[in-house]
Amino acid sequence: MAKEYRIEHDLLGEKRISMDSYYGIQTLRAKDNFSISKVNLSQFPKLIRALAQVKKACAMANNELGLLDDKLCDAICSACDEIVAKKYHDQFIVDVIQGGAGTSTNMNANEVITNVALEIMGYEKGRYDILHPNNHVNMSQSTNDVYPTAVRLALYEYLCKLQNKMQILKDSFFSKAKEFNDIIKMGRTQLQDAVPMTLGQEFNSFGLMIEDDISAIEMTKRIVAQMNLGATAIGTGINTDSKYAGLVKEKLEEVTNRPFVTACDLVKATQDTSTFVQVSGVMKSIATKISKICNDLRLLSSGPRTGINEINLPKMQPGSSIMPGKVNPVIPEVVNQVAFQVIGHDITISLASEGGQLQLNVFEPIIAYNLFQSITMMCNASETLAFKCVDGITANEQRCKELVLNSIGLVTALNPYIGYQNATLVAKEALETNRSVYDIVLEKKLLSKEQLDEYLKPENMTHPTYSKDCKL
Amino acid sequence: MAKEYRIEHDLLGEKRISMDSYYGIQTLRAKDNFSISKVNLSQFPKLIRALAQVKKACAMANNELGLLDDKLCDAICSACDEIVAKKYHDQFIVDVIQGGAGTSTNMNANEVITNVALEIMGYEKGRYDILHPNNHVNMSQSTNDVYPTAVRLALYEYLCKLQNKMQILKDSFFSKAKEFNDIIKMGRTQLQDAVPMTLGQEFNSFGLMIEDDISAIEMTKRIVAQMNLGATAIGTGINTDSKYAGLVKEKLEEVTNRPFVTACDLVKATQDTSTFVQVSGVMKSIATKISKICNDLRLLSSGPRTGINEINLPKMQPGSSIMPGKVNPVIPEVVNQVAFQVIGHDITISLASEGGQLQLNVFEPIIAYNLFQSITMMCNASETLAFKCVDGITANEQRCKELVLNSIGLVTALNPYIGYQNATLVAKEALETNRSVYDIVLEKKLLSKEQLDEYLKPENMTHPTYSKDCKL
Amino acid sequence: MAKEYRIEHDLLGEKRISMDSYYGIQTLRAKDNFSISKVNLSQFPKLIRALAQVKKACAMANNELGLLDDKLCDAICSACDEIVAKKYHDQFIVDVIQGGAGTSTNMNANEVITNVALEIMGYEKGRYDILHPNNHVNMSQSTNDVYPTAVRLALYEYLCKLQNKMQILKDSFFSKAKEFNDIIKMGRTQLQDAVPMTLGQEFNSFGLMIEDDISAIEMTKRIVAQMNLGATAIGTGINTDSKYAGLVKEKLEEVTNRPFVTACDLVKATQDTSTFVQVSGVMKSIATKISKICNDLRLLSSGPRTGINEINLPKMQPGSSIMPGKVNPVIPEVVNQVAFQVIGHDITISLASEGGQLQLNVFEPIIAYNLFQSITMMCNASETLAFKCVDGITANEQRCKELVLNSIGLVTALNPYIGYQNATLVAKEALETNRSVYDIVLEKKLLSKEQLDEYLKPENMTHPTYSKDCKL
Amino acid sequence: MAKEYRIEHDLLGEKRISMDSYYGIQTLRAKDNFSISKVNLSQFPKLIRALAQVKKACAMANNELGLLDDKLCDAICSACDEIVAKKYHDQFIVDVIQGGAGTSTNMNANEVITNVALEIMGYEKGRYDILHPNNHVNMSQSTNDVYPTAVRLALYEYLCKLQNKMQILKDSFFSKAKEFNDIIKMGRTQLQDAVPMTLGQEFNSFGLMIEDDISAIEMTKRIVAQMNLGATAIGTGINTDSKYAGLVKEKLEEVTNRPFVTACDLVKATQDTSTFVQVSGVMKSIATKISKICNDLRLLSSGPRTGINEINLPKMQPGSSIMPGKVNPVIPEVVNQVAFQVIGHDITISLASEGGQLQLNVFEPIIAYNLFQSITMMCNASETLAFKCVDGITANEQRCKELVLNSIGLVTALNPYIGYQNATLVAKEALETNRSVYDIVLEKKLLSKEQLDEYLKPENMTHPTYSKDCKL
Repeated sequence: MAKEYRIEHDLLGEKRISMDSYYGIQTLRAKDNFSISKVNLSQFPKLIRALAQVKKACAMANNELGLLDDKLCDAICSACDEIVAKKYHDQFIVDVIQGGAGTSTNMNANEVITNVALEIMGYEKGRYDILHPNNHVNMSQSTNDVYPTAVRLALYEYLCKLQNKMQILKDSFFSKAKEFNDIIKMGRTQLQDAVPMTLGQEFNSFGLMIEDDISAIEMTKRIVAQMNLGATAIGTGINTDSKYAGLVKEKLEEVTNRPFVTACDLVKATQDTSTFVQVSGVMKSIATKISKICNDLRLLSSGPRTGINEINLPKMQPGSSIMPGKVNPVIPEVVNQVAFQVIGHDITISLASEGGQLQLNVFEPIIAYNLFQSITMMCNASETLAFKCVDGITANEQRCKELVLNSIGLVTALNPYIGYQNATLVAKEALETNRSVYDIVLEKKLLSKEQLDEYLKPENMTHPTYSKDCKL
Repeated sequence: MAKEYRIEHDLLGEKRISMDSYYGIQTLRAKDNFSISKVNLSQFPKLIRALAQVKKACAMANNELGLLDDKLCDAICSACDEIVAKKYHDQFIVDVIQGGAGTSTNMNANEVITNVALEIMGYEKGRYDILHPNNHVNMSQSTNDVYPTAVRLALYEYLCKLQNKMQILKDSFFSKAKEFNDIIKMGRTQLQDAVPMTLGQEFNSFGLMIEDDISAIEMTKRIVAQMNLGATAIGTGINTDSKYAGLVKEKLEEVTNRPFVTACDLVKATQDTSTFVQVSGVMKSIATKISKICNDLRLLSSGPRTGINEINLPKMQPGSSIMPGKVNPVIPEVVNQVAFQVIGHDITISLASEGGQLQLNVFEPIIAYNLFQSITMMCNASETLAFKCVDGITANEQRCKELVLNSIGLVTALNPYIGYQNATLVAKEALETNRSVYDIVLEKKLLSKEQLDEYLKPENMTHPTYSKDCKL
Repeated sequence: MAKEYRIEHDLLGEKRISMDSYYGIQTLRAKDNFSISKVNLSQFPKLIRALAQVKKACAMANNELGLLDDKLCDAICSACDEIVAKKYHDQFIVDVIQGGAGTSTNMNANEVITNVALEIMGYEKGRYDILHPNNHVNMSQSTNDVYPTAVRLALYEYLCKLQNKMQILKDSFFSKAKEFNDIIKMGRTQLQDAVPMTLGQEFNSFGLMIEDDISAIEMTKRIVAQMNLGATAIGTGINTDSKYAGLVKEKLEEVTNRPFVTACDLVKATQDTSTFVQVSGVMKSIATKISKICNDLRLLSSGPRTGINEINLPKMQPGSSIMPGKVNPVIPEVVNQVAFQVIGHDITISLASEGGQLQLNVFEPIIAYNLFQSITMMCNASETLAFKCVDGITANEQRCKELVLNSIGLVTALNPYIGYQNATLVAKEALETNRSVYDIVLEKKLLSKEQLDEYLKPENMTHPTYSKDCKL
Repeated sequence: MAKEYRIEHDLLGEKRISMDSYYGIQTLRAKDNFSISKVNLSQFPKLIRALAQVKKACAMANNELGLLDDKLCDAICSACDEIVAKKYHDQFIVDVIQGGAGTSTNMNANEVITNVALEIMGYEKGRYDILHPNNHVNMSQSTNDVYPTAVRLALYEYLCKLQNKMQILKDSFFSKAKEFNDIIKMGRTQLQDAVPMTLGQEFNSFGLMIEDDISAIEMTKRIVAQMNLGATAIGTGINTDSKYAGLVKEKLEEVTNRPFVTACDLVKATQDTSTFVQVSGVMKSIATKISKICNDLRLLSSGPRTGINEINLPKMQPGSSIMPGKVNPVIPEVVNQVAFQVIGHDITISLASEGGQLQLNVFEPIIAYNLFQSITMMCNASETLAFKCVDGITANEQRCKELVLNSIGLVTALNPYIGYQNATLVAKEALETNRSVYDIVLEKKLLSKEQLDEYLKPENMTHPTYSKDCKL
């Protein structure tokens, strides 16, 4: 009859491990110690994949340096490949919020890879005399270089995904901008009527802001790709061959096909989490912009009868359990909330980064968790906003036009021709008498009808215009 | 053969619903619309329970007012009781981060309760002609009063749980305070040697800070218990009987046995989310304190050879994949991270609260989610800190004592007897010559040996002491 | 000829001090060391006054204990009285942002009081052989109890002032609520038309929120009034008589007439800055509410032609350098910004509080500075909002009414009589055909004209109403 | 007798202005309206200078387009030059925290420039019939393009200054890194003894982090230099000639010699404040790093007798009013506080940015104020930290060395030779018996004395080392 469990040992003693489990004693201790978020590592498959890729690259480098023999190296690499192929993810059981600077995550990976590799070589799990989690799988490594490198690798992939999702959103806005190109409407500053513009210009701005975000992410990826692999415990590279750092960088590139480079100074790189603060800062900037855009969409679609009502958002669900016929801007609303979440996460990340001490920042797990969450939520929010809201927006063209014709803001366009004081008087009279600027200017003979019609042409009000007779 | 699905209708059209499902069309739309956090309502059982309790209380009030007949009321109440008994929680499928101010959560509850009640009455699910989610289960209600009331009720329960967990932590600290009562050690201000104290005093302070937190939560529960049930859509109580608000308050008390009261003004109460900001503010205050305590535990146990090393934390797991024998303060470290998370959540909550507009705050779902997360994590953190760290702390009594005897800070205790200037000179000489304060004072004949021994008694240095000869 | 300067000594050496200066060597060092914000202590007269009051109370207690003779005590008390009378404030020259946990502030006070007292006694400044800043003026004291006590005392005064200012704002809102009592208007949730209410109800809510704030401040003052005077360096009361703490509490009450009490445990109280976090949390809660109110005022007054335009804010200044006649809601806008500042300060305070270590929080100066700034700005903002905005608000009653009559939201009031489904059909048709709910209900014969007129009476829609025929 | 005052008019009426005042009616109204921070524009000379430079460039462009005649243009330019030369700064009297999106700042500039120019032309102040603040000085401009452009210009200068100050700090750290190059010490992770490194490596990391910051600022300056001048009210360029935007960009470059470019899309650029969020994000990242560095300096210098005490900070002032001889790390402490302030400001800026609506962000004044404050304080903090702390740091070389020799962490260096398990046993025994790793390894005959001495050479432990016999 097969054994049901094996006994594993560590610094603190021994523990029974079920023979079904690929993880070992250190993983189990960590599982017992950290029961905080109830969110397991396995919920972040990009991180698990990244860990396996890093471990594989390290094994390859160790092998090439003659430190790890071919048989062990091959087994480790095969085990890593299986994990990359999404196997054994359920063996990553540690809570994402953990003490120990990621050691538990690293040891979880070391133990799972070891036992998978042992089976590949035809041994039973637990035969650490053949292949050892620390001596072999973790060879030339420390949590303090492997873990942040894996986090960076995962982060890189998340950022690529976010760029794709925001591309969708950008395209949606640009497509609407084209569709709304000829719809004239009032611009508003400080919620007060300002001067005319087109609805296309308004949506184009939204697209451009998202486009900026995509570029900002691209810049960010470059700093994310600066890893400290080879640093080991504190960046001095203790227990590594002097050729190792260079070699493992090449191997990692081979394994991942991502442009990762080794940081210039590994002591500094090992303690410095400012990359994560910067990535989070970009996420926060994205959040403030997308929140502003959603606020605008909600304002412009406010009504239907007692608000601005220039655009209609697609109806996604009944809006009220008590108010029949009410439909709410639920998609922008949910995106606003994602933005608030991201801004909150940014503070968490900043606090965790500031709290680092001496040669290491022990709080990287919460940093990684919050970054992954922020990006994942923003991916979902971007796609949701594009597909379930922006793509279905329609314009109330007639309403937009009437608001322009009825506005007092038109008078600004006459400013260069009649002067700020006259224009002020016209504006004041229009407001007080509830009449139109057009009529008052004509009545006061400040301009002829021909001039008025010319100066108030939409194309002349929504772009810079040469105006030779406007000199006061 | 049984039907596989039913057709349900709403404002936007119709949808097929599996006959297995107790939820209906509006829940399904919400499920499709919001795919943001991938965390379902079902992960917050206290909220689901609270929704069922509120719905039951409303049905009872409507029945008593003669608006809902006995048969329907009984069925609704029975359905709610089953949900309170933890059944049907898997039918609460909407993402916790949702647009619509909680309407989807409310409708999910309305639909599930309706269909459970229909089955109780012997009807098929979907027979809304018999019992209607909006007309009957939601009678005299709006999302805008039911949802925040349920959130408050759940919050109340979470806060009670947190008090229990912090009580455990407080007791752990007080128990250690007693154990360490006679251990003299150096106090430190600004990380510089200050004056002596006992280790008991240090741990007692930790306990007292937690005790304050428990009191602060108690205060907070009082404002949490002010609900707006009866407000309906915007607080005007539209579609309710004038006796309803008073009655439903009584019924809710009956159902929950919690001291909930109706807010004085329901229009104000419906738009005002400041209670949640205040609860989060208390959570943040708790977070800053527990983080400070964990920082202290990590400082005091730093070493073992190159740090302060006054106390030993229990060893919970090997600390390093590369450094043999290293053990890290992983429990305080994970608690620090929870604190950072809570402080970040507080910003999210503040932003969401500030973003409310006019008669409602549409962002309550993210507020509730963040509060529930903060409290749950803090519960786990408190218990973990007590059981896996504080309870196992031991003191290095000899080390503590030696640091006191060797310190320059002792000279402060002589201040009243030899004056600030003389004391300054002694301190300076001690530092420069690496000698002890005791020897220098004797050598300089500033005090006799008897005086010195008296003034430097631990009990005289760690408490206010009458000192008749200390007048300068 | 009079001396131009005197030489003073300290631990680090000596410095020339101008004979004009009441401060001494330690103040001058601090002035040189901290050149950060360029904001001097003298800009916070409430803090200087509080320092003088604390020093006076300490001198009185020391005197009563027989530790300080009458002549010195009298001179110290007189010096403190002069400072309370706003003299010598220009001698408080240290930057408010300072290292050292407030030691420089305390020594600045000690030195100024000493030299003023010396002159009172007829001596030259600098005669520390007669009266010494540390031995006498700081007797039985440490920065670590005097400084936080003075900060709390000043904070208490600032909070009283804030209550007065918010009282003004509350009264302004309530006065408008009364004025607008009969103006019917549409309520809005999620920026979408909801159900009717009165403008009075809307403004009443604003007043009630401010009223809550005033109460919250009152609660806060109680925890502010728990001081650690008598703690000296780390709370053990080293260098104090065992009767001192009790006595100095009485003296402080006598001097300030404020209900200050001594904290139960002085070791804990000396390291715990959570009171400040809680005060700031209340300030943040106030900020989120006042910001929400200002957002609402800006929304409701948006237009004049292309927005909601239900109310008019008083015109305070021309709104644009280019757009004639434009007037902006500048007062709510500036108040919003104060709210953002306060929320930012709250994070600064939280970080500073979390950063405390062991027996002391060295970051109290930035905490105090941010709290004083938050409160001062909120005082100014409240008064400005009341006098320059709320008091001058007028309503566009006709516009408000038309929006109600034209709204689809009216149909909610018919819900109990025609059922949610019928009401949904009416709402849908009204929206699609741009017709009124009233006409469609009549046309469909869902209700008689008499019924409709009854159910749609403003008083029936804006309050709970008994409705015996509404059972479905 | 000379007139004492003049009467000026605007949309709201008229006001008396003292003939001494160069500002006019709109400035005075703003002064009356905004009494919030009591900090005037004049405290930010870089902003005033920038405003004058922008106004000059605009006048030059208008002149070249034939819209402004030579005489008026010359007078405006001369007036601007005088302001750049630091004259008339006292005429900028508006509170920095103001409603109206900067209109009051812009009008303050318009009015002062107008009246200075009038005097230059020989007219009395107030002769707006000759030269008008809106028609001429503000020609082709709006607050909404002039103000953010001036803010960006000022920001650019502040960032240059910050780079200079951080350069000083960087040099100080690198200089110490060189000085401490050969001092071996223990590295610490998680406050626990890790493996050896040099003190030079530690200080080099500090320098490298600051160096990164300087580069990050350089990147940031590029996005700061993207202005929206030519946008006028909402970005459509209303009231400008089609050649104006291009021309004014050239003129501004001529006037400022800074590489400012016009944003690609002015509608987007006018509403988008994300540049400021990004600059603040970089400031926050700088803050977290400098705070971490200061925390490290405080830890490393903790003691003198009961802490780590590896380095000595220069003594800047006596540290205590009660504890003789105590000296505190006051400079790092004050820098920590600046970091907390900057992180708080970042939240304020994020909130203000998120709050922008439609075509404009009205909250730019608080954004500008917080950014200017953050940068100014960080300038002061950097210089203070360099000159008053880092430059005077000395090392306790002997202490550093002893801690290494006495440490258990040494065993990590033997890991590759004796294996993780053996190393763990050695570490455990060392800790429990309080003996040295060296002795135990010898005793257990795990390595020869020669091997031990070789492997434990400082140069072999602090850098990657080829180790051919380390294969397990």
